[in-house]
Amino acid sequence: MARVYEMTELCFEGKEPAGSHVEVDVEAEITGGGKTRKLKGFYAGDQIYKVRFLPEQEGTYRYKVTGVVTGEGTVDIEPADGKHHGVVRVDGTHLRHQDGTFISTFGTTVYALAHQTKELTEETFTSLECGAFNKIRMCVFPKHYEYNKNEPEHFAFYKAENAGELIFHDNLGGKRRVKPFDTHRPDFDFWEDFETKLNRLFDMGIQVDLILFHPYDRWGHSHMTQENNLRYLDYALRRLSAYPNIWWSMANEYDLFYDWNIEQWHEIETYISANDPYRHLLSNHNCFLEYDYGREAITHVSVQTRTCSRVAELQKEFGKPVCYDECCYEGNLKETWGSISAKEMVNRFWKVTVTGGYCTHGEVILENDIATQKQQDDAVLWWAKGGKLKGESPARIKFLREIVEMLPAPLDPYIEGMSKMMMMSETELSSMINAMPEEHRGFWSVLGRMNAKEKTYHLLSEYSYAGHIGDEVYLYYLGTDCSARFRPEVAAGKSYQAEIIDVWDMTREIVAESYKMGDELRLPGKEYVAVMLRQQPAPMRK
Amino acid sequence: MARVYEMTELCFEGKEPAGSHVEVDVEAEITGGGKTRKLKGFYAGDQIYKVRFLPEQEGTYRYKVTGVVTGEGTVDIEPADGKHHGVVRVDGTHLRHQDGTFISTFGTTVYALAHQTKELTEETFTSLECGAFNKIRMCVFPKHYEYNKNEPEHFAFYKAENAGELIFHDNLGGKRRVKPFDTHRPDFDFWEDFETKLNRLFDMGIQVDLILFHPYDRWGHSHMTQENNLRYLDYALRRLSAYPNIWWSMANEYDLFYDWNIEQWHEIETYISANDPYRHLLSNHNCFLEYDYGREAITHVSVQTRTCSRVAELQKEFGKPVCYDECCYEGNLKETWGSISAKEMVNRFWKVTVTGGYCTHGEVILENDIATQKQQDDAVLWWAKGGKLKGESPARIKFLREIVEMLPAPLDPYIEGMSKMMMMSETELSSMINAMPEEHRGFWSVLGRMNAKEKTYHLLSEYSYAGHIGDEVYLYYLGTDCSARFRPEVAAGKSYQAEIIDVWDMTREIVAESYKMGDELRLPGKEYVAVMLRQQPAPMRK
Repeated sequence: MARVYEMTELCFEGKEPAGSHVEVDVEAEITGGGKTRKLKGFYAGDQIYKVRFLPEQEGTYRYKVTGVVTGEGTVDIEPADGKHHGVVRVDGTHLRHQDGTFISTFGTTVYALAHQTKELTEETFTSLECGAFNKIRMCVFPKHYEYNKNEPEHFAFYKAENAGELIFHDNLGGKRRVKPFDTHRPDFDFWEDFETKLNRLFDMGIQVDLILFHPYDRWGHSHMTQENNLRYLDYALRRLSAYPNIWWSMANEYDLFYDWNIEQWHEIETYISANDPYRHLLSNHNCFLEYDYGREAITHVSVQTRTCSRVAELQKEFGKPVCYDECCYEGNLKETWGSISAKEMVNRFWKVTVTGGYCTHGEVILENDIATQKQQDDAVLWWAKGGKLKGESPARIKFLREIVEMLPAPLDPYIEGMSKMMMMSETELSSMINAMPEEHRGFWSVLGRMNAKEKTYHLLSEYSYAGHIGDEVYLYYLGTDCSARFRPEVAAGKSYQAEIIDVWDMTREIVAESYKMGDELRLPGKEYVAVMLRQQPAPMRK
Repeated sequence: MARVYEMTELCFEGKEPAGSHVEVDVEAEITGGGKTRKLKGFYAGDQIYKVRFLPEQEGTYRYKVTGVVTGEGTVDIEPADGKHHGVVRVDGTHLRHQDGTFISTFGTTVYALAHQTKELTEETFTSLECGAFNKIRMCVFPKHYEYNKNEPEHFAFYKAENAGELIFHDNLGGKRRVKPFDTHRPDFDFWEDFETKLNRLFDMGIQVDLILFHPYDRWGHSHMTQENNLRYLDYALRRLSAYPNIWWSMANEYDLFYDWNIEQWHEIETYISANDPYRHLLSNHNCFLEYDYGREAITHVSVQTRTCSRVAELQKEFGKPVCYDECCYEGNLKETWGSISAKEMVNRFWKVTVTGGYCTHGEVILENDIATQKQQDDAVLWWAKGGKLKGESPARIKFLREIVEMLPAPLDPYIEGMSKMMMMSETELSSMINAMPEEHRGFWSVLGRMNAKEKTYHLLSEYSYAGHIGDEVYLYYLGTDCSARFRPEVAAGKSYQAEIIDVWDMTREIVAESYKMGDELRLPGKEYVAVMLRQQPAPMRK
């Protein structure tokens, strides 16, 4: 049965293409829900051609397919099942599904999910049922790295056995001589298996931030010519664009492709954007050098950074949603990126989330008894291969997610006090200071004389993490601050229910029913506490 | 009995000065220990004039006093008692006493210690016997602030009752009309009581970072004319310069004197420097705007900042010792500066200390049952009034101090890996990268393309905290990093005893007797761990 917001597939028998299995001439014109779309089909192997589309309204859709296969007919689309809401799109700095439902993402990372055994993948899906996450970052291509050495069963494309050798240094410095991939010849077994995973994730309501390129490679995927890169994208876009839960991540750590120039990335970006009929979210993830999220086709910020105070700054700079897609991983590895505590992971999630950003988790917990290189290569770390979640952060992320999901709308950053003043322009700051009573102007004028470095140091170390939904909800996260008394700002003249949230112990306690601006709350005086204030009675929403 | 490195006092009877009790004409020429010094004396009240000096060698000192009182004679100076080592001076980025002994300072803060009751002060001294601290930051003038409202028994000077009123806004915004101080008329009761405290601190081996001016004032001390400021300094310098344990801190938060211009501070700096015969340490502490520590008379950095990764940067910029004299306080107040956890306080101490800096503690723990404004004003918070230490950080600071004090020399910052590269100039970085094997150059070259903002964010969030004493000792502090495996860098070809230090639980465990470069250590995989490596056998020291 075909439903609104679910990928619908039309299949046609035909002859196996004589030449490229990618650049096949199949086009469908699909009319329904008040729209006509022209969509490319793809060759799926075994003399089957497919065209996929994503209906946005119930009713009858009429299709006409032309090219190497032809056909026409209708498909009846049933109403959405209420569980699925369509492609995630950008609404200012927020995210909404096609049906208008807001989504706050709580991501996790299983880079090489596509290339693990069935058994391990089952375990991964079971872990994902914990309910902490509604987004996953994963790669199309296999990954070569510490703890990521397994040879995949299938590649996205067959090797071009008759071509000359491709010689390169892999990301760990090893010299490689391999046959290049033939991007005219997709391995349909790979794609089918891959889609089984996408379908499963879709059923679980999990968005897939699909990483199209990455530099952790010993097979040659990161050393294809640009022509091959684009042909791979052609195939991926024909096959996958109708999946409602896909986001395009041009790369994981694009900047580590140090022999690619920026124009090459721009070309990839333009290609995806021009050939994706459903305008999925599109971004590019960095290691050291942040991508220019201001570019028109880039829908959102997908940043690797450990500096959690930047959501408002990035929103202001780019006017787009801000995803902290890498902020280190809960674990015990020797690397800085792989050894933050569960508490710190949760801390970062709260900082990013309350200020209106979207954070992504990862876990790299290595068992103590692992000693040899072989054991290390074979180890199953969540961030690489999936498996069991061993960490203590997912339960807390779920707790946070539940709080955010009961809110009536997405949070915007609420920047107050010193942080606000540090982020003001000179003009804004001086008019604010001039509006103060005379006896306070002197003190605050000192702020105006701070240099850029002093402001940066101050902001980065003293940022106050808070978000709000208009006057309706305020959510303050105190982090490592142990204040036992707290006077959170709320809208003047309005009354709020005040709730103390222990983000680690996962307790919530309503401590006041009519908190007003200027009142003082008593807090537990310990680390990792949040305070939520909800207007009482809740205002009517438009 | 007079001893080397202890203040020695000569007393002379004379007539009470007819005019100024400060600008009295008393000068001593003191010859001993191979030196002749000309020192000013001061009027101490009750027809007594005093001249104080600080002998640096044993033997007979000859003095000749001229002016409104006269006298000559000799004083026999006994050898130092071994407990005291003389004035602390700067040696590069380190601190040494006059006798050459290195000192690493572990500071605390009791701003208004000079203005509390005898009973409370006794309790404070008892607390200081805990052994965590060998430096205290305290003010000459009383303090007006939240939790600091008590009226002092004595001021440094009498009020000029016949003068016109001084009208100003105090630091809390209150309008004040007061009689100005008459800086010709010291209140000798104040100074005697004050010196009782200095003597007591001296006996306990505690350095006094003496804050000469501060803006937290309802009495007018921060609103004196510059002429009065200098006359006050004249008296303080005559009386106190021979105390071996004094450091001059021009101000606490100098920049909050927003109606003073910078030249006024320079004049004060020059005045102190020119009139202090014993060249005590001299610096100026900031709130938002850091003082120019590069100025010639400034001996060290005395900075308020929460960014603990700056020791090496500040050492490099100024070539002077770096004191983190305010990095927030352990406590539960509503303010950011007064609500860090004990763990975070200890964390900051370790970060600063292992990288070769000197950190200062403070404690602001407010009892839960305090509710009224009056109770709050009367509350005894350590940072303001002293009393009992209630926090959990002092025991850990003592543990750190004991580790540092058994080291053979002061620590220098050891900056490795990414942090090192982030701090390099473009030229340094590119020559480092060019020296790498070809297959690694690409990756590292990406670093060279980071912009200043990216570098700052990276450095501030990923700094690795480590120090070393040449090849002899390496001390790594992992902070919130939970690595269970660790390969600390040491000098190649040398062998080290490796010790794991749990900085919170205060345990030390030797885990290897012959650790070498490239070996891997197993760590507990939890937050707040340090690793110390000491060369075995310990090399001979010059």
